[in-house]
Amino acid sequence: MKKDEFQLRCPLPLRDHPTVQMAHGGGGRLMRDLIESLFLPAFGEEKGVDRLAERISTNDQRPTINEPHSAPHDSAVVEIGGQRLAFTTDTYTVSPLFFPGGDIGHLAVFGTVNDLAMAGAKPLWLSAGFVLEEGLPMETLARIVQSMATAAREAGVRIVTGDTKVVDKGKGDGVFINTAGIGVIPSGIEVHPRRVRPDDVVLVSGDLGRHGMAVMSVREGLEFESEIVSDCASLAGLVEALLAEGAEIHCLRDLTRGGLAAALNEIALDVAVGVDLDEQAIPVTGPVAAACEILGLDPLYVANEGRLVAFVSPASAPRALKILQEHSGAFQPAIIGGVTAEHPGTVVLKNPFGGRRILDLLSGEQLPRIC
Amino acid sequence: MKKDEFQLRCPLPLRDHPTVQMAHGGGGRLMRDLIESLFLPAFGEEKGVDRLAERISTNDQRPTINEPHSAPHDSAVVEIGGQRLAFTTDTYTVSPLFFPGGDIGHLAVFGTVNDLAMAGAKPLWLSAGFVLEEGLPMETLARIVQSMATAAREAGVRIVTGDTKVVDKGKGDGVFINTAGIGVIPSGIEVHPRRVRPDDVVLVSGDLGRHGMAVMSVREGLEFESEIVSDCASLAGLVEALLAEGAEIHCLRDLTRGGLAAALNEIALDVAVGVDLDEQAIPVTGPVAAACEILGLDPLYVANEGRLVAFVSPASAPRALKILQEHSGAFQPAIIGGVTAEHPGTVVLKNPFGGRRILDLLSGEQLPRIC
Repeated sequence: MKKDEFQLRCPLPLRDHPTVQMAHGGGGRLMRDLIESLFLPAFGEEKGVDRLAERISTNDQRPTINEPHSAPHDSAVVEIGGQRLAFTTDTYTVSPLFFPGGDIGHLAVFGTVNDLAMAGAKPLWLSAGFVLEEGLPMETLARIVQSMATAAREAGVRIVTGDTKVVDKGKGDGVFINTAGIGVIPSGIEVHPRRVRPDDVVLVSGDLGRHGMAVMSVREGLEFESEIVSDCASLAGLVEALLAEGAEIHCLRDLTRGGLAAALNEIALDVAVGVDLDEQAIPVTGPVAAACEILGLDPLYVANEGRLVAFVSPASAPRALKILQEHSGAFQPAIIGGVTAEHPGTVVLKNPFGGRRILDLLSGEQLPRIC
Repeated sequence: MKKDEFQLRCPLPLRDHPTVQMAHGGGGRLMRDLIESLFLPAFGEEKGVDRLAERISTNDQRPTINEPHSAPHDSAVVEIGGQRLAFTTDTYTVSPLFFPGGDIGHLAVFGTVNDLAMAGAKPLWLSAGFVLEEGLPMETLARIVQSMATAAREAGVRIVTGDTKVVDKGKGDGVFINTAGIGVIPSGIEVHPRRVRPDDVVLVSGDLGRHGMAVMSVREGLEFESEIVSDCASLAGLVEALLAEGAEIHCLRDLTRGGLAAALNEIALDVAVGVDLDEQAIPVTGPVAAACEILGLDPLYVANEGRLVAFVSPASAPRALKILQEHSGAFQPAIIGGVTAEHPGTVVLKNPFGGRRILDLLSGEQLPRIC
């Protein structure tokens, strides 16, 4: 394609940015633009509104798309022999490679496991693709591989296939890891943004922002009064518990890039509902709040790697909260708000003094390369 | 793990190389060492001889490993609901991004499709994980995404899930793409290195070395009399034709990093058989032979991205050759040798004058970053 041709065809958001910016990978508005303007038109079969997510049946070999909405980082759901599989991928480029509470190896396993779990799937198998920079100490690689193995055991998955590429010194950054994952969705389980309804109750499984601030503290050499340890962990067990107990779970989303704000905005936009949050109910620990204040960050936008937000029917909410409170994978879980038919596409934060502010999607990410 | 601890535990091949070298990603001996010394002990469930490949059953939730041998870049075979799935991954870091006959987008789709096809699977779904370098022209990304879409249509697969990460300028190299793929292995199909037998006939589906030399010509700014165009293509159709016709195909391997020599050596080592090749029968086009001579390269070690080597029962060999000759996905296919119980683990090249030389596995790759 010649340059002119591209510019003619190129949708407005991309014409505004003729080169890739850090924000295009930040989980915010620019990444959404990139996906909607470039990836979906190329890879989606349908060009219309319904092109986003897919349930694909191999019965007729012609994939069929019958789910109206999804969001960028969901697992795809494919069907084979009557069995629904969740399939997802993520590349991990966190810098630095090691941080309090984990490393890139933990993230690479837990992140993909969590994406599968958010589709209600039982995660089973992972692939691992490494891009190593020439000169990386072999000891560093060995530590990372070891933590992947440990994390896989913890999450109950197997790493069954892999690939290694090496790039010249200065053309990479130590190690990048891609993992793709396959999980099985038990029959009867339907966890999906399209099931979100007005009056749904919104819960979080724990305190916000810990992973992002843990990475940040190492990167910036900051010392806080108490060390902030990443929350990175598998959410598979927690999801299994929620689903096993028969609580009516409509939708799950793990909080990664862009934090709670990005997760809720994506769903609000994709499903065209509003979300009202009670600012006081949102759990943020003292050290994270203090660190955010020092750095001028809003914890609602800071990434976790072991927390989820759940959309639950009002009747099931107390039960869901109880399950979370009793599960070791949650910490300070809370009901933080609800879904509304008003202000579709918008997340509103209410403070105890009656104040209201819109919790918008940022352009990019306050903290790049935290996962 | 502390440094001392690592060095104590670290197997000899890795202690010889305390840092990652380009050759660790080159498809040769060093990559094999890395996989066997580091990845397999960490990710394989069994520590013994049989740990390499896996067929995993979800019936009892405890993965079982019952295939004695595999080789580093095979698809994993997993079982779900009585259906066998092939699952594989590859990251593409080719430099430059565009070359005669293709680009990184074509490679990312065809390469993974071909890995699935080598397990006898019908490729169905791909994931795509992008690592973009800040400052990459959006136009370049758009061209690559477009060729992925075209390649996916050609290969009959869907790209159903994806991820985008952006790294700071100078911490990547334009774009790296990981694809993972899922395919279905039709019942009754058993294509696997462990089926290789002495007396099997060895065929190639076409001329060697074209992809590597096409990339090389752009990278080095070389001009040859006639342009060398990459052979990169999907092998799925060719494999389907071979399997549909009932020829007794024991094993398939696509020729990528390390070329024909690496593919045959891997199988010879993994299955403990010898391979005898007739040097004169191996197809190399004039321009590739000339270019290799100028650069001092051996075409038997140069990568293809649309060629396979097949191990076929003696009775089926003429039929397999005929299928290849009539298929548009093959070019100058040929019977190039056979398997022998003698010299297990070794590939021997015979010339018409009675000369014999061992075609060894190189340490790394003559041409780094060709895929």
